[in-house]
Amino acid sequence: MFSIILSHPQMGENIGAAARAMLNFGLTDLRLVAPRDGWPNERAIANAAGALEIMPPVRIFDSTVEAVADLHCVLATTSRTRDMVKPVFNPESAVEELHQRLTQDQKIGVLFGGERAGLLNDEIALCHGIISIPTNPDFASLNLAQSVLLLGYEWIKTQGTLTACDDNNPPPAPLEDKEAFFQRLETELDATHFFRSEGSEAIMKRNVRNIFSRADLTQGELNILHGIISALRGNKKKPGTK
Amino acid sequence: MFSIILSHPQMGENIGAAARAMLNFGLTDLRLVAPRDGWPNERAIANAAGALEIMPPVRIFDSTVEAVADLHCVLATTSRTRDMVKPVFNPESAVEELHQRLTQDQKIGVLFGGERAGLLNDEIALCHGIISIPTNPDFASLNLAQSVLLLGYEWIKTQGTLTACDDNNPPPAPLEDKEAFFQRLETELDATHFFRSEGSEAIMKRNVRNIFSRADLTQGELNILHGIISALRGNKKKPGTK
Repeated sequence: MFSIILSHPQMGENIGAAARAMLNFGLTDLRLVAPRDGWPNERAIANAAGALEIMPPVRIFDSTVEAVADLHCVLATTSRTRDMVKPVFNPESAVEELHQRLTQDQKIGVLFGGERAGLLNDEIALCHGIISIPTNPDFASLNLAQSVLLLGYEWIKTQGTLTACDDNNPPPAPLEDKEAFFQRLETELDATHFFRSEGSEAIMKRNVRNIFSRADLTQGELNILHGIISALRGNKKKPGTK
Repeated sequence: MFSIILSHPQMGENIGAAARAMLNFGLTDLRLVAPRDGWPNERAIANAAGALEIMPPVRIFDSTVEAVADLHCVLATTSRTRDMVKPVFNPESAVEELHQRLTQDQKIGVLFGGERAGLLNDEIALCHGIISIPTNPDFASLNLAQSVLLLGYEWIKTQGTLTACDDNNPPPAPLEDKEAFFQRLETELDATHFFRSEGSEAIMKRNVRNIFSRADLTQGELNILHGIISALRGNKKKPGTK
């Protein structure tokens, strides 16, 4: 299990957006330590876009120590190392570490501080390491839910799902069909005196081939191009004629 | 230049949060196509956490064609391939592609659709490829600003900044100092008859060493541990005595 622990979160909007981000990436165990406005929270529900109804009930704790008690490894998100001797991870390496531990049946979690004050040093001292999210040093403050999102996003990348939709593009046409198209195009261009001199003709032909080669044309697209040439050359056939 | 283009965005909150996310990751060129509530937008400003004041002015366009006119390569974010023959990227591979083009002095951009309807097929047809963000298939809908955030995050990862804070942990102590600590610990434990039998003593000593070896102890921490042993053994020396 991969738990997300929000310590002393203030705004319900952020709790809701964090829940939505969690479920977007398949995370469902949300724990709150002393949320400022209590729980349940209407603004959280409104901002979760339905996620809180799908996820198991959020658990509320009085202290961070209690919230992480059953976990084997917790990493703390913070933008400062605070002179504590801890391994420092970025989101990607953090998720690698956590994933490795999960395969050893460890219960893992990531701890996030409240919007204003972040985490206390005593809370960070509970954690195995620190996660530092790379940001623009001149504008570094990430929204709480955004930080949760980035961890969730890195997490789903370890789960083998790298795009939401399959790359179900049709395959490119076989080279012989492309060659037939090139030859027809060249023949038609020759007929229009497109190629002026022998010297430039070879280069021009190569350039034309390169344009269409790069495009990784499918069979359907080749048919369209044949149709275009026919149309441009004005030798469209009426239906039923030969 | 790396541009973010939001086509027909609806909620000012999302535009503002997108601007904040952009600046968090060092992106500053935001273009809006026909924002529903006009521009400037108070809710956008409120949600940008100051980003809009730092970034160059947002540019507004009537159509997506105009908004991307000066760019060399635009990728479209969408969760469906829509039966168009396009390369499909995930955020990571998209950013690799864009980064490569930027090094060739191309102007690059990512196009995002509005909250409700996403992008029109005609808008996607303008783009070189599609970016599909991996999400939980049962809860796939990402907030607009969150999608912008993920692209910005992948972008900053290509800029060589992998953690916001340096790993400035002190180095571990040299092995001779650790060895001295182990030997003192073993001597003290021997004196308390901690090691019962010869058979188990070697294993026990190895286990104790492993505990402390794994911790990658620094010089300062070794000093603390020496102090703890002294304290526990009751042989603290008063200042000035030998």
